[in-house]
Amino acid sequence: MITAAVLLIGDELLSGRTQDANLNYIACKLVERGIVLQESRIVPDIEDMIIEAVRALSTRYNYVFTTGGIGSTHDDITQASIAKAFKKPLVVNAEALKILEDYYGDNINDARRRMALAPEGATLHEKMVFQTENVFVMAGIPTVMQGMFDVVLPTLRTAPPILSVTVKAYVLENDLADELSAIQAPEGVTIGSYPFDEAGNIKGTNLVARSRDAKKLAIVEKQLQALVDSKCE
Amino acid sequence: MITAAVLLIGDELLSGRTQDANLNYIACKLVERGIVLQESRIVPDIEDMIIEAVRALSTRYNYVFTTGGIGSTHDDITQASIAKAFKKPLVVNAEALKILEDYYGDNINDARRRMALAPEGATLHEKMVFQTENVFVMAGIPTVMQGMFDVVLPTLRTAPPILSVTVKAYVLENDLADELSAIQAPEGVTIGSYPFDEAGNIKGTNLVARSRDAKKLAIVEKQLQALVDSKCE
Repeated sequence: MITAAVLLIGDELLSGRTQDANLNYIACKLVERGIVLQESRIVPDIEDMIIEAVRALSTRYNYVFTTGGIGSTHDDITQASIAKAFKKPLVVNAEALKILEDYYGDNINDARRRMALAPEGATLHEKMVFQTENVFVMAGIPTVMQGMFDVVLPTLRTAPPILSVTVKAYVLENDLADELSAIQAPEGVTIGSYPFDEAGNIKGTNLVARSRDAKKLAIVEKQLQALVDSKCE
Repeated sequence: MITAAVLLIGDELLSGRTQDANLNYIACKLVERGIVLQESRIVPDIEDMIIEAVRALSTRYNYVFTTGGIGSTHDDITQASIAKAFKKPLVVNAEALKILEDYYGDNINDARRRMALAPEGATLHEKMVFQTENVFVMAGIPTVMQGMFDVVLPTLRTAPPILSVTVKAYVLENDLADELSAIQAPEGVTIGSYPFDEAGNIKGTNLVARSRDAKKLAIVEKQLQALVDSKCE
């Protein structure tokens, strides 16, 4: 199993100012590649908290993706924090500096040069994505993050994609739960049940089976459909 | 300072199936009450991961709010996990069971009865919100969660609300960063800078100052406005 975690960095996510849109984008792309996103954390722009989260997640999972805190202002401390998390000095990455100087020309300034700072030994990918150990560092703005993540994706190891089927039932979860528990899913298939409430008053449950094995999944789908049909009659 | 953390529980948040909407709702309400949301974690429906997160967050912060995993199906393991996190048995809460029986009448079933299970000694609030120690357990469906959270809010200790002012600048963050760093914010005022990209090509930066002290905030707002004005001329 190839695993991953996402670390969203930024006061604005915890103050309610900003609704995160990055986790969902990353999650969907990882599923397609068969990478299991196991955990996500959201921390403010506080160095100690970023360091702790980076250490915990990078030790435990194959890949860690961070978003936010890589701009040029005083509250952009992601790279410095990652350097400390891995006990590396924060240095000017010559390759990145050259890219910035070529791009900005005479408009280069100290703030822009700061974006070439990264932990010593970091790998520089396209679109200024720095990778330190198994941690990929991306921007917080969704459009920018998406471009960066699309650079990262092809570099990751992949597994057979995790397939899923959904059986939608206009039946309350409570009225399905006992029979649902009785379904014996074959090994490698997980079943989840997700109540929904459309337009505030049309209630029901989505039954979702997930597996890498399409044949097993088809068998479970039939079982779920039969359960729902027995309730809808 | 009164602090809080949010623990979002559910495979569907990490598989990309569902876009979380609960964190932002909770964050906004906490800010109004002066409670500082310091961290959030998102974990799948895996007992060990819920236990670990509950222990870490409940030790560190004044309040923890969980969402998800409290329905009646096999994958709803939040209450059982919280019981284990606090080393308490999971028992039938008599008060909750009576509410369920009164509400469902003849339609009560085992699945519905399961929703009366909670850690021993848990406090039952309105709308079936269980509180164990400093952990409040809520549903994952946003409309239901919001009703539950509104029950919880008045029971929390509060602090003077955290005020904020935003100065919007159609200036790139890079072009503000050096001067922004030079602004000496008075103690108790934090300044954040958030690049935006409207309609994909109208770029700029929101400068946000936060404080509990309205007077200090007004001073910083003027400084930020002066900085932006100097760039926009």
